[in-house]
Amino acid sequence: MVEAEVSLGWDDSVSSGMTLDTVRDSLIRQEDTIIFSLIERAKFPLNSPTYNQSWVPGFSGSLVEFIVKQTENLQAKVGRYENPEEHPFFPDDLPDTVVPHFEYPKVLHPASASININKDIWDMYFNQLLPLFVAAGDDGNYASTAASDLQCLQALSKRIHYGKFVAEVKFRDAPQDYEPAIRTKDKEGLMKLLTFEKVEEMVKKRVEKKAMVFGQEVTLGNTDTNVKCKVDPSVVSRLYGDWMIPLTKDVEVEYLLRRLD
Amino acid sequence: MVEAEVSLGWDDSVSSGMTLDTVRDSLIRQEDTIIFSLIERAKFPLNSPTYNQSWVPGFSGSLVEFIVKQTENLQAKVGRYENPEEHPFFPDDLPDTVVPHFEYPKVLHPASASININKDIWDMYFNQLLPLFVAAGDDGNYASTAASDLQCLQALSKRIHYGKFVAEVKFRDAPQDYEPAIRTKDKEGLMKLLTFEKVEEMVKKRVEKKAMVFGQEVTLGNTDTNVKCKVDPSVVSRLYGDWMIPLTKDVEVEYLLRRLD
Repeated sequence: MVEAEVSLGWDDSVSSGMTLDTVRDSLIRQEDTIIFSLIERAKFPLNSPTYNQSWVPGFSGSLVEFIVKQTENLQAKVGRYENPEEHPFFPDDLPDTVVPHFEYPKVLHPASASININKDIWDMYFNQLLPLFVAAGDDGNYASTAASDLQCLQALSKRIHYGKFVAEVKFRDAPQDYEPAIRTKDKEGLMKLLTFEKVEEMVKKRVEKKAMVFGQEVTLGNTDTNVKCKVDPSVVSRLYGDWMIPLTKDVEVEYLLRRLD
Repeated sequence: MVEAEVSLGWDDSVSSGMTLDTVRDSLIRQEDTIIFSLIERAKFPLNSPTYNQSWVPGFSGSLVEFIVKQTENLQAKVGRYENPEEHPFFPDDLPDTVVPHFEYPKVLHPASASININKDIWDMYFNQLLPLFVAAGDDGNYASTAASDLQCLQALSKRIHYGKFVAEVKFRDAPQDYEPAIRTKDKEGLMKLLTFEKVEEMVKKRVEKKAMVFGQEVTLGNTDTNVKCKVDPSVVSRLYGDWMIPLTKDVEVEYLLRRLD
């Protein structure tokens, strides 16, 4: 089994250096990136012409679809999606990379490449999250707004798809716990194995605190804790509780279901 | 004089709503953006192939030049540079915008459109600042690195060119103070009028504190103040003291020299 996998170019030895600790550190660091990106998006009001009209001749989608698709094309050319941590929102017809191949550590099972739930992330971000943390209004900055949305989408997508790495290190830690549920394709059983409510509560509290710290008005005097944060910390907690954690676990389950292929 | 300016489409009435207070608030808010962008860039090591090689067929520049130029093209199409607060790094041959014209308040003298010191900002960022806050090394993430550099460049450029607005509100507040030096093209005199050392020291201290707050490791326990910040706060203070403040004042002087045209 392992040898077949190695022959696919897959290195499942622990020597990749990825452990539950390094994965957790990355997830914690990514929280900062996500919160920064939300705070930056909140600088602009909703700016609905970014979303509900088709402006670009020859392109039928919205302005934000245009910016995300074209930026992804550009970044694909210089190798962004060679990194197994990155997932495009418009994976069809992406150009080949022109930069030399970089040898990222092969940590994941090769079947994981087919898992991309960015459609769900896109829907969640625009239809549920965005209205919760931006003000109403239109200040004309549609290009900057779309660029800012892209930052948020990329940060959320990376975190959620990092579930692949989470699942891989959890599996390596205790394959015997997961194999029966994988073999019987028991999604519910896997979900149960991957759920630690105490940890999830702690994550929600931590991101709420981070939103408070990073979104505060920092002055040289004493911090006025009554000042409104740039993004409501309870929204960030809800983002994690309602969407980030469940979607990450969806990715983990999908990954594990393919783990013995 | 004023009427000639109005006929150019320039509204120099105070009714634009821009005051020294709103300008200051924007500068303070932009500090957060700048520090977030530096912290995000510091996630990656230097990744020198982003800068010192030409990878893209048909494009003679470096990978970061390719990403910045092409992203600017994309953003120009959807109107980013219609906003007088935004300045491209590659202003030649930018495509026309395809989105309807948004009526930004006409606060600045029309002659200000010709002021763009992004070449200096580019040199400062890559040759002086970047080596001070990123680790050595190469992790292959050149596309993400270049995208991250673009975020930094745009944030720095916006802040520095905001000097145009700073100069305009200062001039409106006390035209009699500035007019003699403008008429005699006395750059040194103007620089003196624009320099408030106490304020500059305060800004440097504030951004240092912000770098500490935003770059800390936020945990649910007590904050360990001994933990290394993600970007050295003294580097951020130096960035402002050595480059941001002087370059902003350069823009202010250039603006004022054209203010009576």
